[in-house]
Amino acid sequence: MYYGADYYPEHWPEERWPTDAEMMAEAGLNLVRLAEFAWTRLEPEPERFDFAWLDRAIEHLAARGIRVVLGTPTAAPPAWLVRQHPEVLRVRADGRRVHFGHRRNVCLVSPVYRSCAERIVRAMATHYRDHPSVIGWQIDNEFGCHDSARCYCEACQGAFREWLAARYGSLEALNRAWGTDFWSHTYRAWEEIPLPFADALPANPGLALDYRRFASDANVAFQRLQVDILRELCPSHFVTHNFMANGFQELNYYDLARDLDFVSWDNYPDLRRSDPAQLAFNHTCIRGWKGANFWVMEEESGAPGTTVISPNPRPGDIRLWSYQAIAHGADAIVYFRWRTCTFGAEQYWHGILDHDGRPRRRYYEVQRMGRELQRIGAQIVGSEVNAQVALIFDWDTAFAFQIQANNPAFDYFEHLKRYFVAFHRRNVPVDIIPWSADLRRYRLVLAPALYVLSPDAAARLRAYVEKGGTVLFDVRTGAKDVYNRVAEGPLPGLVADLCGVTVDEYDSLPPDVTVPLVFDTPIVSTQKLLAHTWCEVLAPQGAKVLVRYGGQYYAGQPAVTLNTYGKGRAVYVGTIANPPAYERLVDELLSSTGVQPLLDTPPGVEVTARWQGQKRLLFVLNHTNAPQSMSLPGEFHDLLSGQPLSGTAVLPPKEVWVLV
Amino acid sequence: MYYGADYYPEHWPEERWPTDAEMMAEAGLNLVRLAEFAWTRLEPEPERFDFAWLDRAIEHLAARGIRVVLGTPTAAPPAWLVRQHPEVLRVRADGRRVHFGHRRNVCLVSPVYRSCAERIVRAMATHYRDHPSVIGWQIDNEFGCHDSARCYCEACQGAFREWLAARYGSLEALNRAWGTDFWSHTYRAWEEIPLPFADALPANPGLALDYRRFASDANVAFQRLQVDILRELCPSHFVTHNFMANGFQELNYYDLARDLDFVSWDNYPDLRRSDPAQLAFNHTCIRGWKGANFWVMEEESGAPGTTVISPNPRPGDIRLWSYQAIAHGADAIVYFRWRTCTFGAEQYWHGILDHDGRPRRRYYEVQRMGRELQRIGAQIVGSEVNAQVALIFDWDTAFAFQIQANNPAFDYFEHLKRYFVAFHRRNVPVDIIPWSADLRRYRLVLAPALYVLSPDAAARLRAYVEKGGTVLFDVRTGAKDVYNRVAEGPLPGLVADLCGVTVDEYDSLPPDVTVPLVFDTPIVSTQKLLAHTWCEVLAPQGAKVLVRYGGQYYAGQPAVTLNTYGKGRAVYVGTIANPPAYERLVDELLSSTGVQPLLDTPPGVEVTARWQGQKRLLFVLNHTNAPQSMSLPGEFHDLLSGQPLSGTAVLPPKEVWVLV
Amino acid sequence: MYYGADYYPEHWPEERWPTDAEMMAEAGLNLVRLAEFAWTRLEPEPERFDFAWLDRAIEHLAARGIRVVLGTPTAAPPAWLVRQHPEVLRVRADGRRVHFGHRRNVCLVSPVYRSCAERIVRAMATHYRDHPSVIGWQIDNEFGCHDSARCYCEACQGAFREWLAARYGSLEALNRAWGTDFWSHTYRAWEEIPLPFADALPANPGLALDYRRFASDANVAFQRLQVDILRELCPSHFVTHNFMANGFQELNYYDLARDLDFVSWDNYPDLRRSDPAQLAFNHTCIRGWKGANFWVMEEESGAPGTTVISPNPRPGDIRLWSYQAIAHGADAIVYFRWRTCTFGAEQYWHGILDHDGRPRRRYYEVQRMGRELQRIGAQIVGSEVNAQVALIFDWDTAFAFQIQANNPAFDYFEHLKRYFVAFHRRNVPVDIIPWSADLRRYRLVLAPALYVLSPDAAARLRAYVEKGGTVLFDVRTGAKDVYNRVAEGPLPGLVADLCGVTVDEYDSLPPDVTVPLVFDTPIVSTQKLLAHTWCEVLAPQGAKVLVRYGGQYYAGQPAVTLNTYGKGRAVYVGTIANPPAYERLVDELLSSTGVQPLLDTPPGVEVTARWQGQKRLLFVLNHTNAPQSMSLPGEFHDLLSGQPLSGTAVLPPKEVWVLV
Repeated sequence: MYYGADYYPEHWPEERWPTDAEMMAEAGLNLVRLAEFAWTRLEPEPERFDFAWLDRAIEHLAARGIRVVLGTPTAAPPAWLVRQHPEVLRVRADGRRVHFGHRRNVCLVSPVYRSCAERIVRAMATHYRDHPSVIGWQIDNEFGCHDSARCYCEACQGAFREWLAARYGSLEALNRAWGTDFWSHTYRAWEEIPLPFADALPANPGLALDYRRFASDANVAFQRLQVDILRELCPSHFVTHNFMANGFQELNYYDLARDLDFVSWDNYPDLRRSDPAQLAFNHTCIRGWKGANFWVMEEESGAPGTTVISPNPRPGDIRLWSYQAIAHGADAIVYFRWRTCTFGAEQYWHGILDHDGRPRRRYYEVQRMGRELQRIGAQIVGSEVNAQVALIFDWDTAFAFQIQANNPAFDYFEHLKRYFVAFHRRNVPVDIIPWSADLRRYRLVLAPALYVLSPDAAARLRAYVEKGGTVLFDVRTGAKDVYNRVAEGPLPGLVADLCGVTVDEYDSLPPDVTVPLVFDTPIVSTQKLLAHTWCEVLAPQGAKVLVRYGGQYYAGQPAVTLNTYGKGRAVYVGTIANPPAYERLVDELLSSTGVQPLLDTPPGVEVTARWQGQKRLLFVLNHTNAPQSMSLPGEFHDLLSGQPLSGTAVLPPKEVWVLV
Repeated sequence: MYYGADYYPEHWPEERWPTDAEMMAEAGLNLVRLAEFAWTRLEPEPERFDFAWLDRAIEHLAARGIRVVLGTPTAAPPAWLVRQHPEVLRVRADGRRVHFGHRRNVCLVSPVYRSCAERIVRAMATHYRDHPSVIGWQIDNEFGCHDSARCYCEACQGAFREWLAARYGSLEALNRAWGTDFWSHTYRAWEEIPLPFADALPANPGLALDYRRFASDANVAFQRLQVDILRELCPSHFVTHNFMANGFQELNYYDLARDLDFVSWDNYPDLRRSDPAQLAFNHTCIRGWKGANFWVMEEESGAPGTTVISPNPRPGDIRLWSYQAIAHGADAIVYFRWRTCTFGAEQYWHGILDHDGRPRRRYYEVQRMGRELQRIGAQIVGSEVNAQVALIFDWDTAFAFQIQANNPAFDYFEHLKRYFVAFHRRNVPVDIIPWSADLRRYRLVLAPALYVLSPDAAARLRAYVEKGGTVLFDVRTGAKDVYNRVAEGPLPGLVADLCGVTVDEYDSLPPDVTVPLVFDTPIVSTQKLLAHTWCEVLAPQGAKVLVRYGGQYYAGQPAVTLNTYGKGRAVYVGTIANPPAYERLVDELLSSTGVQPLLDTPPGVEVTARWQGQKRLLFVLNHTNAPQSMSLPGEFHDLLSGQPLSGTAVLPPKEVWVLV
Repeated sequence: MYYGADYYPEHWPEERWPTDAEMMAEAGLNLVRLAEFAWTRLEPEPERFDFAWLDRAIEHLAARGIRVVLGTPTAAPPAWLVRQHPEVLRVRADGRRVHFGHRRNVCLVSPVYRSCAERIVRAMATHYRDHPSVIGWQIDNEFGCHDSARCYCEACQGAFREWLAARYGSLEALNRAWGTDFWSHTYRAWEEIPLPFADALPANPGLALDYRRFASDANVAFQRLQVDILRELCPSHFVTHNFMANGFQELNYYDLARDLDFVSWDNYPDLRRSDPAQLAFNHTCIRGWKGANFWVMEEESGAPGTTVISPNPRPGDIRLWSYQAIAHGADAIVYFRWRTCTFGAEQYWHGILDHDGRPRRRYYEVQRMGRELQRIGAQIVGSEVNAQVALIFDWDTAFAFQIQANNPAFDYFEHLKRYFVAFHRRNVPVDIIPWSADLRRYRLVLAPALYVLSPDAAARLRAYVEKGGTVLFDVRTGAKDVYNRVAEGPLPGLVADLCGVTVDEYDSLPPDVTVPLVFDTPIVSTQKLLAHTWCEVLAPQGAKVLVRYGGQYYAGQPAVTLNTYGKGRAVYVGTIANPPAYERLVDELLSSTGVQPLLDTPPGVEVTARWQGQKRLLFVLNHTNAPQSMSLPGEFHDLLSGQPLSGTAVLPPKEVWVLV
């Protein structure tokens, strides 16, 4: 298994390079990512290239058996480029052009910038195509970070109009799609169409959604420009990009993943906010963007920080986070960064080594895991997560909810996480998928808040249910068409008949209001089951009522229904609820679909499985600070300790079993 | 009585129009407002007009007996206009020009925009002057909304300098008025005078006040441009504009009302914040801007929302709000909007019908009231509210407090409401008036915080007291002259002798500090009477002390005084107090002036009266969710139920009596 | 002793001037500051000067024996200047140019502005060089206020590049110093170097620190331009500038003080936030900038305010604040302002007199003190504060912490105050000094958070310890070099060996986390001793452990150490603690260094000493609202009351003794 670090030899004196390589090898590292932000070093002036320093750095690493992923440096242009072409600088939503002196400060639509990017990537690919140490490429860095997903420059304005012309064919079609009769916005010339600048008022929802799509496409196109060069020149190298999680929702990640060999991502658990379920959700999303295993290209190995510093990872955290990533489908772990930089905007983004380059606690923890992976890594790589439950994530919906949250407390990612967390608590694997995925692999498909619902998506879900599948829909399903117009039929729109229910009214609740939920099943709950944020009053058209409201003017009215349709079932949840209510609902869904948890564990102990063909690797991770005892159903062998385990076993704090 | 809806036929297929008209008629609606934002539809390209579609829509409505108010569409210009004349776009206080894609995004001072507006209004008026269905006009839409009252473009800069030249005659006079010796701001050329852009520091108070006046005048002038055309071409039609409430304080509404036949307004109760007293205060203000009955041109008929959605009106709310409007002087109710739009920035601003156009709870509630009004509306229209108590609202003062709040917790509207609420709780009608109104109609005139006090205003109030009236003044009275300079004499400035008191010091309190108030009258209060926000230490010059402070270094010093002057009395309240203290004060004022409450009711039951000559209509509204019992002084007849009522009667929740 | 007021005769009718002069004299005032913002009055049009009005004003004052300090008016240019040269207007960090209509709205680097400033100062100095009433000059007003310390205009951009060229000599040196290899920021031409505009991301720390230095230098240079003129033309006059406190950290105040005869400052205690220790700290800082006595040029004499008004000073406050200033080294008190202005942006910044010009409570309080100073002032002026404890304040460190706070709760000023307050509570005088001061005068030197540590500073502190001194260091010491790069060696960097300790890790804590501190000395504390914000895990390299952590994963690890080095000692405090922990630490430091408190007093009673040669004046100030009793060690004479005092004596609320 690849296990490495992000390394910037250009930040350190050349004399140090052999020491770094040796210390890496000592820690069991066998990979580095290089050159990610080194454009000026590689092309010190226009069209003059210098690879000698990088060749020497790679030589030292190669001598220790360390392989190389090269980053293309296009996330930060040289000063000479910006001075020559100031129009490449990005324009913000408030109309202000950003300045040189950061990164992600350029417009990816700019023809000049695209041609400069092409030149440097072509030069690098030509130079390294046959290098024995180089195994692959990371394109650019974290597209969309620092609020850079959308630019508002003149080049973007022109390109957006062309994109619209291609999409709609005619202004008549565009005017109809956006409903420009509203507020007299009808366009008679493409030149009249504005960008959705951040003025006081929200833009037309159709325009706003299309601009998000256009900008996402522009990022994807910029990536493809580089992918195409690398595919052409380096056919034996893999190509990836480092994605983000933690709620980043600005780019269509299915699209961005499509052109890559695999997805990588940057995992920075926030000790102040991230719980293990959040981290598991992040990994699950990342695995979902391409429906395949992934790399962690930047794994937190020290306190992050720029102007302020986050808390220090606690002993055991780095190793536990790394195993959790593997448990969810990571095939490589690359730590950010080898050594904490002494200068630049990230001088407080700590790596494995501190500024002084001496090995301390974090280095030894990385080393411990490095030696473990040398022993067991090969048994893990390539094994797959197989889930029977799928959670649909839809980017049109994500964009549309960014434009109109419907309720101030609503966030699409957070809402999907409500379901995920309930399954995660029961150690039931879940896949994140697009609605266009092959649904037949799953016993249960959850489609919460599938707000933008196309006829294709509705048809696909209907077919799945017809053939025996179970689908769960919830609030706001089908409220919008693909033009971000509200559906004209009663909600849930195109799936109303599938659900056997219509929405009679909806009530968007203030933050402090909750409404009791009354389940029709007679199980007595010790916890209050409560709706909040959004309540839809349902009118069953054939569906059976599962849950009713216990308050407000709709007390006694249906809140959750179940419809049988064809050979399958459709559940409609007309509200947003507290965790105990979701756990109750998930228990009923598991029981009715026959999906089994992997293992019953105490709170804070997470279990996942990866399958190497028929062989199952069970990952058991104790995220708590106390030993946790659990009963194992059978005889197991722990790959890490090499010990057999059975009956009641105790997992020490922050420790891991890999059971076969 | 006119009872209608705001209707946008251009948002729906023409095939639907007859259904809409029929459903309206079924609901008892007899009026629609049309064409409000339809400029592009009416003038698809410069100087080419198209009224055919609107004529056809009106025809369908006319067939059901529905009359039409036309909105002039100048709140949202066509894209072609902005493309041709980008300089018409408004500039914000931070110097940024807004973009096309919203509404209220234009400068009303711009000569180009004014001439385009004139052209479309003239064309509409010419076309509809003799149409039998058209009864009147609404000019533009909500002047000043979305922070659009003031523009900072070059046209405004020039116009402001001309406005100043007209006001002051000479730079010497302006320099003197503004006190430009401060910070070396003396102007030697009109071209040197800046606009009060939003930089770090507050502008000169004189300049800031004049810019608010200028901008208000500019809005009034833009309205007058249209009024003049309509008066000329459509002499038989009424002309109105839809005002705002809920604390909007950016335009001089007395001035805006002056040129209109009557004031309309847009009533959107906020279920999270609005209590019945706040709504009553809004109606009272609106009735006050012209001192006459009004229309509700947009009455909430569904949950408002743009990016997020407000709570749904509860059953009975829409009808209760509509009767409350009538109870306070509304002569027509027009709901916003007929059917919820499926596109555009307001696709979540819900109307009587949902997006799907089917009748549900809200439609049936509107229908119930429509049938009631068909029965009793004619007995109400034109009847008048007669108040014996007046509350002075002064726009110069409002503007000056926006510039300098004096204390962070102070808001002029909120402060006036403190008094209003105490009278409202006792069912005593109050009028909002300018100081220039005929005061002799009132037994009691309240002039709280009359901060900008002109010699004319002082003289008028003095004359009123001399002849036997009672006036209440309070904090900051007379602190400013009309140039927003601080009065040089001791406070309360020009009315110090009238009040028989001077202000020895004032203490602006932090948010968490309160000071006990000790009334000299021996009534024992069960509630704590407390001052907050602002305490003036009073030095009586002949006045009698009514209340003293019970804390701080001014413990024992006077807080409220009463002076007899001529045949009347002047009360001076040197502080801001909690509601029980105002109720106590109001009880004393009612008792000393002999003003009688309309009826004694439980909390949450509101009573107003409208007079048809000598015939009194008593509106009794139960704003609570419980039945309320009250004792009726005599024999009444309830117009709504047709039943007699006397003795102890019970009003069901959210129900209404109209008693004669 | 000079005792005066800031006076603006140009704001009042000339007829009032004699009354003002008479009332001043009656109050014991003998000084005014004049002309501070009167540029337009003095130079009504370019190169035409008018001093006649000012001469007449001075004449009235002179007739009452009142001397004059002239302010140069360069903090607010005339409108004609800005109209002629709009490029002099300052550009904000967001790239927006500010407008005319305020003050501090100009770029001090602008060559045009500098030449206009030179012209007016030269004209004033020429006119008043020999005037018998004029004794000195205040240059400009509060450099840096209203966020004006740094400008981002083109003139600044050019000047900054020149400043960098002078500092670094070559781009190679600059690139190395800033670490421009990070994010490909390497500069190949001076023209490529940007200003650190406020974009989304923090700038390179080296660039950011240099821009703060450059901007500070630019302010100092603008002051020197004027100093040079005044030294040349008015050799017998003193030259000062009015500094700010309350956390203002934008300019290097040691540099600004260097060119002046003495430092003045503007003391506005905030009744909502300032406690006596904060005010004492402010005075101590001000005395430290030049290491000498100072003036209060603007002493609060009424409620401050612009758009909102602060609470009114309580009876006794103004006098007590004035005596506190004197107690800490003030040699003159000048009140801001004589009379509250009726116009302009500061019409609510109250002075001794209210807007109406009548004497009230505040006037009489000023008068009381005026008469006292006429009696005892001469015995105080020029006497010196002698401290045995020094607190190092370093401006590079202050700037670097503004750029990167390290922890959101950290503020350099506030952190130094933690130590100051503990000494202040024990009535132990402290000096604020730069590290370059003569340390041998002190028994104890505190250097908390000396983040930017140069080799020179380290050497100087080392030498001091070697010869027997005691130094305290704490968190983040030596973390940065002078280029704002992180030190490569283990922390505390250049003083690690002096402290006999290295930092093994640091943990930046979230706001709600505290960690118990366990002192090795066996004194039982009744208060919890807690670390917060920042915890460094220390690895002693010879030092003795004084305090250990009692929680987190570093429980039991050292938090505070003591090292003996040469003849002296170095204490290293690896954390930030609550006040009881600092008091405990200070007690140990006092006892080990033999420093004695001046007097033991109840809480809220402050004691300072000034020395007239060997004669000690002991100032005892009761900041509480209650009488305070204390035991006097010997026989004293109170200069103020003229009474002898000994044994147990009672100081009334807000009262003062000056004991000899």
